[in-house]
Amino acid sequence: MKGETENKPVWGSRIGGETSLMNVYYCAGRDPFPKPPADEVLIPYDLWLNKVHCLMLYKQKIVDIKTARAILTGLEEISSLHRKGEIKILKEKEDVHITIESKLGEIAGEEAAGQLHTARSRNDQTTTDCRLYVRDRILEFYVSIVRLVETLLSSAAGHFKTVMPGFTHYQPAAITSWAHFLLSHAEAFMRDLTRLGMTYEQWNASPLGAAAGFGASWNIDREYTARLLGFSSVQENSLDCITNRWEFEVQTAAAVSFFMNHLSILSQDMIILSLSPRPMISIDDAYVTGSSIMPQKKNPDFAEVTRAKAALCHGRTMELLSLSRAALSGYNRDTQWTKYAIMDIFDEVHYAPILFSSVVETLKIDKAEMKKRCSEQFITAVDIADFIAQEKKIPFRQAHRILSESVLECEKEGKLDFDKINARLMRLGKKSLKLRKGDWAILTSPERLVERRKHMGAPGEQALRKNWDRLKKNLKIKKDWYKQKQKDLDSTHRMLREEIDKILKTK
Amino acid sequence: MKGETENKPVWGSRIGGETSLMNVYYCAGRDPFPKPPADEVLIPYDLWLNKVHCLMLYKQKIVDIKTARAILTGLEEISSLHRKGEIKILKEKEDVHITIESKLGEIAGEEAAGQLHTARSRNDQTTTDCRLYVRDRILEFYVSIVRLVETLLSSAAGHFKTVMPGFTHYQPAAITSWAHFLLSHAEAFMRDLTRLGMTYEQWNASPLGAAAGFGASWNIDREYTARLLGFSSVQENSLDCITNRWEFEVQTAAAVSFFMNHLSILSQDMIILSLSPRPMISIDDAYVTGSSIMPQKKNPDFAEVTRAKAALCHGRTMELLSLSRAALSGYNRDTQWTKYAIMDIFDEVHYAPILFSSVVETLKIDKAEMKKRCSEQFITAVDIADFIAQEKKIPFRQAHRILSESVLECEKEGKLDFDKINARLMRLGKKSLKLRKGDWAILTSPERLVERRKHMGAPGEQALRKNWDRLKKNLKIKKDWYKQKQKDLDSTHRMLREEIDKILKTK
Amino acid sequence: MKGETENKPVWGSRIGGETSLMNVYYCAGRDPFPKPPADEVLIPYDLWLNKVHCLMLYKQKIVDIKTARAILTGLEEISSLHRKGEIKILKEKEDVHITIESKLGEIAGEEAAGQLHTARSRNDQTTTDCRLYVRDRILEFYVSIVRLVETLLSSAAGHFKTVMPGFTHYQPAAITSWAHFLLSHAEAFMRDLTRLGMTYEQWNASPLGAAAGFGASWNIDREYTARLLGFSSVQENSLDCITNRWEFEVQTAAAVSFFMNHLSILSQDMIILSLSPRPMISIDDAYVTGSSIMPQKKNPDFAEVTRAKAALCHGRTMELLSLSRAALSGYNRDTQWTKYAIMDIFDEVHYAPILFSSVVETLKIDKAEMKKRCSEQFITAVDIADFIAQEKKIPFRQAHRILSESVLECEKEGKLDFDKINARLMRLGKKSLKLRKGDWAILTSPERLVERRKHMGAPGEQALRKNWDRLKKNLKIKKDWYKQKQKDLDSTHRMLREEIDKILKTK
Amino acid sequence: MKGETENKPVWGSRIGGETSLMNVYYCAGRDPFPKPPADEVLIPYDLWLNKVHCLMLYKQKIVDIKTARAILTGLEEISSLHRKGEIKILKEKEDVHITIESKLGEIAGEEAAGQLHTARSRNDQTTTDCRLYVRDRILEFYVSIVRLVETLLSSAAGHFKTVMPGFTHYQPAAITSWAHFLLSHAEAFMRDLTRLGMTYEQWNASPLGAAAGFGASWNIDREYTARLLGFSSVQENSLDCITNRWEFEVQTAAAVSFFMNHLSILSQDMIILSLSPRPMISIDDAYVTGSSIMPQKKNPDFAEVTRAKAALCHGRTMELLSLSRAALSGYNRDTQWTKYAIMDIFDEVHYAPILFSSVVETLKIDKAEMKKRCSEQFITAVDIADFIAQEKKIPFRQAHRILSESVLECEKEGKLDFDKINARLMRLGKKSLKLRKGDWAILTSPERLVERRKHMGAPGEQALRKNWDRLKKNLKIKKDWYKQKQKDLDSTHRMLREEIDKILKTK
Repeated sequence: MKGETENKPVWGSRIGGETSLMNVYYCAGRDPFPKPPADEVLIPYDLWLNKVHCLMLYKQKIVDIKTARAILTGLEEISSLHRKGEIKILKEKEDVHITIESKLGEIAGEEAAGQLHTARSRNDQTTTDCRLYVRDRILEFYVSIVRLVETLLSSAAGHFKTVMPGFTHYQPAAITSWAHFLLSHAEAFMRDLTRLGMTYEQWNASPLGAAAGFGASWNIDREYTARLLGFSSVQENSLDCITNRWEFEVQTAAAVSFFMNHLSILSQDMIILSLSPRPMISIDDAYVTGSSIMPQKKNPDFAEVTRAKAALCHGRTMELLSLSRAALSGYNRDTQWTKYAIMDIFDEVHYAPILFSSVVETLKIDKAEMKKRCSEQFITAVDIADFIAQEKKIPFRQAHRILSESVLECEKEGKLDFDKINARLMRLGKKSLKLRKGDWAILTSPERLVERRKHMGAPGEQALRKNWDRLKKNLKIKKDWYKQKQKDLDSTHRMLREEIDKILKTK
Repeated sequence: MKGETENKPVWGSRIGGETSLMNVYYCAGRDPFPKPPADEVLIPYDLWLNKVHCLMLYKQKIVDIKTARAILTGLEEISSLHRKGEIKILKEKEDVHITIESKLGEIAGEEAAGQLHTARSRNDQTTTDCRLYVRDRILEFYVSIVRLVETLLSSAAGHFKTVMPGFTHYQPAAITSWAHFLLSHAEAFMRDLTRLGMTYEQWNASPLGAAAGFGASWNIDREYTARLLGFSSVQENSLDCITNRWEFEVQTAAAVSFFMNHLSILSQDMIILSLSPRPMISIDDAYVTGSSIMPQKKNPDFAEVTRAKAALCHGRTMELLSLSRAALSGYNRDTQWTKYAIMDIFDEVHYAPILFSSVVETLKIDKAEMKKRCSEQFITAVDIADFIAQEKKIPFRQAHRILSESVLECEKEGKLDFDKINARLMRLGKKSLKLRKGDWAILTSPERLVERRKHMGAPGEQALRKNWDRLKKNLKIKKDWYKQKQKDLDSTHRMLREEIDKILKTK
Repeated sequence: MKGETENKPVWGSRIGGETSLMNVYYCAGRDPFPKPPADEVLIPYDLWLNKVHCLMLYKQKIVDIKTARAILTGLEEISSLHRKGEIKILKEKEDVHITIESKLGEIAGEEAAGQLHTARSRNDQTTTDCRLYVRDRILEFYVSIVRLVETLLSSAAGHFKTVMPGFTHYQPAAITSWAHFLLSHAEAFMRDLTRLGMTYEQWNASPLGAAAGFGASWNIDREYTARLLGFSSVQENSLDCITNRWEFEVQTAAAVSFFMNHLSILSQDMIILSLSPRPMISIDDAYVTGSSIMPQKKNPDFAEVTRAKAALCHGRTMELLSLSRAALSGYNRDTQWTKYAIMDIFDEVHYAPILFSSVVETLKIDKAEMKKRCSEQFITAVDIADFIAQEKKIPFRQAHRILSESVLECEKEGKLDFDKINARLMRLGKKSLKLRKGDWAILTSPERLVERRKHMGAPGEQALRKNWDRLKKNLKIKKDWYKQKQKDLDSTHRMLREEIDKILKTK
Repeated sequence: MKGETENKPVWGSRIGGETSLMNVYYCAGRDPFPKPPADEVLIPYDLWLNKVHCLMLYKQKIVDIKTARAILTGLEEISSLHRKGEIKILKEKEDVHITIESKLGEIAGEEAAGQLHTARSRNDQTTTDCRLYVRDRILEFYVSIVRLVETLLSSAAGHFKTVMPGFTHYQPAAITSWAHFLLSHAEAFMRDLTRLGMTYEQWNASPLGAAAGFGASWNIDREYTARLLGFSSVQENSLDCITNRWEFEVQTAAAVSFFMNHLSILSQDMIILSLSPRPMISIDDAYVTGSSIMPQKKNPDFAEVTRAKAALCHGRTMELLSLSRAALSGYNRDTQWTKYAIMDIFDEVHYAPILFSSVVETLKIDKAEMKKRCSEQFITAVDIADFIAQEKKIPFRQAHRILSESVLECEKEGKLDFDKINARLMRLGKKSLKLRKGDWAILTSPERLVERRKHMGAPGEQALRKNWDRLKKNLKIKKDWYKQKQKDLDSTHRMLREEIDKILKTK
């Protein structure tokens, strides 16, 4: 959807630029969009699983070549029908498993189709389907976040010296820089990548073969099916596979919730930094929404919607945690509902990282306003106190007190008065304490003040460049991980193709 | 859907009776069912609102008769198309409001359609639509719960003397009766009715006219529109209408959550009471599910699913509460997401009370097993202690101690030994303390023991009949309230019809 | 604590005025404050219950006068020790019930004390204690909210004409007035009062006598004990009393969560309206916090803390809902944890309404800034569009389009140009459409513009006065309800005194 | 506390054995226990941090040796007072930082004490304190879970052949073994260890030096302080440190929530397996609770309480996630509340793994009952169907159908009839299908049936032994990780001692 735009938004002609369709859809939510049956999205995964299970039954001599061939031919045909959009979940079939099984019966005959259900249960089947589904969603989401971090890093690269006010309690607190602000978000998203990656690795294990939770008396080969499904291992204990079906989904939901929290913070930052009457940033017209009644509005709906979607993720995570609390070991139908929660989450957040990537890319920064804010409201008071303590060698607390009192004295004028500070310094009795012109030149330059903050992680340019370099290096590691996973899945698909062909092409 | 059954469930031939389709669908969840766009369900409400708004604009002379007629004719036509299923929310129209407005433009001309948006905003429009939607859902849900309570009361009527073990800590604790058990659930559901009714009354007020939150400079008549929408009053302050759009939805979500918690308790009771190897109740085959792999299973899926749906309601309630926390006064797009949460809730719970009503109606009670349990595991120990204290006039604590010690002594045999208790009583030194044959006849009859509990709310028949009568009387009040609401809505619709006809039939 | 102030806050001398101790404590959270054992706060309620239970046992001839006198004398003595702070919950006594029972044993003898436990269980005892505790907390909280609404109403009274910008999407959207803003909050708090009152009434019923859930075989009089505990009725079915012990607590938690959500919205409003560099309101120095490192800061910590406390209430509500989901009917120890959640909630929110009442009372409004904002950023665009539609009789959508285009054209200048609008109007071809000087005088006066919004609930003075009057009237009803409850409790205590005296003074 | 017992529980003499005090306290909750001020537990961490900060200030020449010596001497003295229990958080000092700072002022003089606050803020200080606190709690919790897994493994070792019924939908579903059941829990706890370990590693990074979020203009050495606090790295970007203070706490809360969910499942299993009238397991008397009114009860309160504590963890996790949603970058006071939530969690769950370890260790298994259950209720139907399909070579679905029908036919008798199955097999027309005596010997032996399930993760002995070995090996890795962390912390403390001594012993 990315990149598409359209020209005639419903809210009139106010917004100059083109509108991002991705943004419109992200914000439209479920108002105009239907949802397919939950099991519809599982069709390709269930087909994959069926093929693999059939291959294994044949390899283990549980079904004969004729049956295997009939089943695999049938499944290939269903795959092809599915690609043409011709497989639907019918309510009388209840779910994806019965839908495919009955379709297979039509094509390959009841006899062959019936044998496919040997040595398995809907319990391990659905758990495996969901695991494959969530695994894919994590990978897609992962690479989108990688792109968002890349965007933050490239945006930051041009702003190591762009000063801006930093906030605490929504109040200007200290000078910082735009790059420092962007990197703080990049750091958070990097941790999200770590969590998503860990979740993927911890759960890239096959539950197939757990059957109803107690295994089967058939001579199945769980390692073989795991390999053909691209899992790096088998989730061993069969009861654990079924009892804790919810766990991967909740862990993923939690990992996404963390990301969405970070994104909701970036959202609120964008809303506040673009606040009237003196905005410091301006969101591109493609990503703002007008109003049907108030022609002058440029609303950052995507940011508000992101706050809502974060709450949605929390609510779903909570539901999932609660669902599985105090369950009895073994299958209970409650867990069917975990599937819906995780699907809802990915439906809602899918485009979020890409959308924010575009928003950040096209963001306009009002450097002049940012700089102006750096000399208002006594925002430099701490820097001045520190400077006095450092250069004039008086205790920090004393310097701090002098600045506190000076701010109070100068409150009406709205800015610190050089002479008044000096007067207070003089009262300490040492002439050397006096601030000089050269001092004042530093103390009135936001750039020079922020540059004095040089230590690791500080907003001074020197420190920032190191922070940037480290992030870049770590991002490379994350990207490499992603590429490896993709490669692994590609070779899994090739291997599967070969195994199927071996049977279909055997005479 | 109620009453429909089908003969060929997917899990084979194990279950003897017919299968309830309602149950199948309730348990199938979203596996095979798609969801329409959220705004699709709002179409009739938005049409209603549009008609009412148009009537008001005409009455207040904001639009002329020609325009009003064009608009109303167009809206009537759209209503008729909608009844035929021909109105769809299109993604390029984004929502129900634009969908209808643009359809109206096609039919009545852009000029007339444009005038309909005078003196309102999508903000008050969507809030009003949702309120009408939720109001209807509450009423439907209310009457279904009324039916469930009725079923509990009629089931209880035949079981005032049916003894069963009562549980604490999942352990048999004291004799009670099946009617007492059923009435305890009826009481809880009655409180749910009270909460739902209160919520309805507190929010049966019209937000229409709040516009974007700050009213309009048009001479609108909010009391007139409120009346024609069946509201009993106007939600006055326009900013409050918009800022707190979430509130009715969360309050409803909370009220439903309470109900679903009660239903999840009834579910767990049914699961535990029907537990193997010695079930006390048996759920009708129409409401249990078989297993594709385990032919002997009769699984109470509906009860498990209800536990899950309760968790879903909690999660959505939490999402809604969180969504609105620390919002800024006035409209923010986050609130669009409150609509989805409340719709999800009603989609999931809609059939729950009716389904449970059918399950309770068809439940089989194994009176013999229930009675048998009433003489096992020392369940009568407290009653015996009380009896001794009451009839033999020794302090309660002392009687209790004697029974404690007797239980310990008789643990191996598994039942209390008359003589051993008597031996301990004798040690107290008074001959009159001895339990006699007549005493023992009482003490070994669960029916006679439970009958001794006579005070208000106790499980003895006498007390139960009073409990039943009071519940019956209060249920009548609930039903009357519901009928009154239906009557109010009916007369609203008649009034609306008349107002429209006045204009359409005026020459 | 109200009204107390101290002079030396820890964050230095920046803040001019005196500091509110209530605010300091509200914000200090649990950092410096210990929490007593949970059951310590239940001591007076458990003593009350014990006295009432004893009176009933005597009245029903279950204990004799000598025993009753011994017990009551003992309980009176324990009450008196408790008032002197000499009763502590000891960990070896586990809870309040055993603590009091064993103390009573020491004073009145084991024999008498033992008889007090006749016909009851710790299950109904603890449920009753908690109900008495929560009932008191609701009343206290209720009257504090009444005071907050009163403050909002008196503050609003002086500001019916004080114009300010109204926001949507955090962006200035339309002119409104300070009184309109304040009343929108008052409306929300009024609904909170309704919910709390309803909760109180629905649950002012006695669970005492339910025993372990299955009643007792003693001839107890539950209506008599209910009356002496100030309950208006008996919660009848004994099993319902125990199974649903959580329900009153969750309903209360939910009601408080709604209030805290409203308060968190008011908090966010205060933070945003006092935002630098051009604040519209200024929070009194008594309620802001300085910074140990940034001397210029005046931080609205109480507002931030309120956002956090709202989240805390939601989390506890969720915990409570979850706790009771799918429980088995009858007592389970899980429910002990509901007590802690509701206690935590009241500990955290107790002072909130009073504190906000003080904050609102002492708030300074910068009318000039507010008015200035009303002529910036095209905030009057809608009003002008409406004016043109109304006075020049052109369709709303057309007027809206003209304003949309004019805003776009004038964006650089930052304000609407009379001539440019007129030029567009002229293009429609009718001379009469032209805006004249008199029109412009209205269109550039925020006061005159807002005054044109006259309909029910709008921010125009006329409508506001009606809104104010209705609120005042309804507040009176709320206050009267509170007074009645207090009176009821007073007469309950008198009745209890008389009943006790009858026994103690009988020779 | 472990190992302590007392002889006189409050609920009478019913329970034979000794009572575990740990269990009593775990279940008593907050009834009899007070909570100290939250900051009291931070005292040792804040002292540690202060010492390290002072060493760094000296190393970087920000304070001179005299000041450093004064500060360190003072801090050592406060540490020593704290060990004697003589440091309390006073409400007028608000928090741990001011408490220690003012104490230091008294001891070392205001001048020296004041200098310690150079180049830092309460923001980074409190974040660091909390990180140190949570890090310690994770380690303690980790090693307790290690012990629980060890117990599960040693218990399982003796039960590879102990058959029991496995459940789905709370109904007996298939034969499994006690070892299989125990290992399924061990697997889940192993994942909990992985998550806790990952969380520890991801967050073992120092936020100290972030100051108020924007660093400091002092030449601080963050890597040096990180090393002396035992962190393996520095959390670099200073704004990220402050904005995302909540993140480690929520991630930990989530990790604990997963564990508690697993424990709540084990709890429910214990409750259901010990259910009357035919319990399969028996919890040791030390861990059950009696009833004050029902002498025969042995209640597994610890299991119920665990369900509640799991809900508590979820609610706190939700609160924490919600708290930080849509915050503005930089410090906001809301985050102070995250500290309380994580402290509450650890207070509640601290003893849980150890307690369960003891419960599992002392659990009595009724092998006879377990085995008996394995021949009831057609639990072997699937195994028989599989056997027929395997040995008689008929399609699985067909074998399954035959068993389905046979169960239905034999329902009244309650057990499968050999001849009836054979009759159905015969109808298929092949004599070879007939089940023979030898077959029936297998089919009526639960042990032999379960042994046929041999594949990876199945409950057959062969598979179980492999599962057990792998778990044992992985547990070793977890233990080694723990030991390494302890070693790292030990050497950190030695290094700190040396650094301090260098200064204090320098002349």
